[in-house]
Amino acid sequence: MTEKLGILAIGHGSKLPYNKEVVTQIADYIAQNHTDVVVRAGFMENSEPTLNEAIAAFSGTGVTKVAAVPVFLASGVHITKDIPNILNLDENGCGTLMVDGTEVPICYAGPLGADKLIADLVYKRVEEAI
Amino acid sequence: MTEKLGILAIGHGSKLPYNKEVVTQIADYIAQNHTDVVVRAGFMENSEPTLNEAIAAFSGTGVTKVAAVPVFLASGVHITKDIPNILNLDENGCGTLMVDGTEVPICYAGPLGADKLIADLVYKRVEEAI
Repeated sequence: MTEKLGILAIGHGSKLPYNKEVVTQIADYIAQNHTDVVVRAGFMENSEPTLNEAIAAFSGTGVTKVAAVPVFLASGVHITKDIPNILNLDENGCGTLMVDGTEVPICYAGPLGADKLIADLVYKRVEEAI
Repeated sequence: MTEKLGILAIGHGSKLPYNKEVVTQIADYIAQNHTDVVVRAGFMENSEPTLNEAIAAFSGTGVTKVAAVPVFLASGVHITKDIPNILNLDENGCGTLMVDGTEVPICYAGPLGADKLIADLVYKRVEEAI
């Protein structure tokens, strides 16, 4: 069977629109660059769709495995506790989702972290401002 | 007079250590790549140094202007209201700081935002997990 990857891009969410806009745009960029992948975005607080709504939106796509990736700069309580609880992940960040009545494996990716790409982008924002 | 740039890298802060670790590492990368620039990190919540402590740490460095850059993925209340209030920025994101008794101009940079570099990094985190 050919594998088909789904990406669950998880945003923090906010009462203001910006977090959802940024996370959704990032999800769109990934989908544009990887047309064989099904990308869905879901949020932890205040913004919609929720994580469970985003998972439901894999229905009919034929995904055979899902990577859940927090689109967060750094780890925190949502990443260490809340997301693993909602997704029923084990200590290794592994679990299963039900998609169209079939169990699909899900694995948990890390947040952005202190990558040098981020440092370059922060410096670019500085150059734009000075 | 030769200009000397200071960068005030502003992190969200957290009760957990991760946000401070990531923002501090990013600030260190910027300092390593731009040895003519003075980089200080400060935090909005729970982590130290605070913004005002970070500003005080420009003392003795000879900075002649400062760029305040939120090391946040997306804008939100800290960025639209709290940081401009603390830094006394005007509607255009401009203001002045006192450093060693001298007024130094400060300008406000944008957060990371939905840059394609971020999308590539999110996909890299997915590849590491699957």
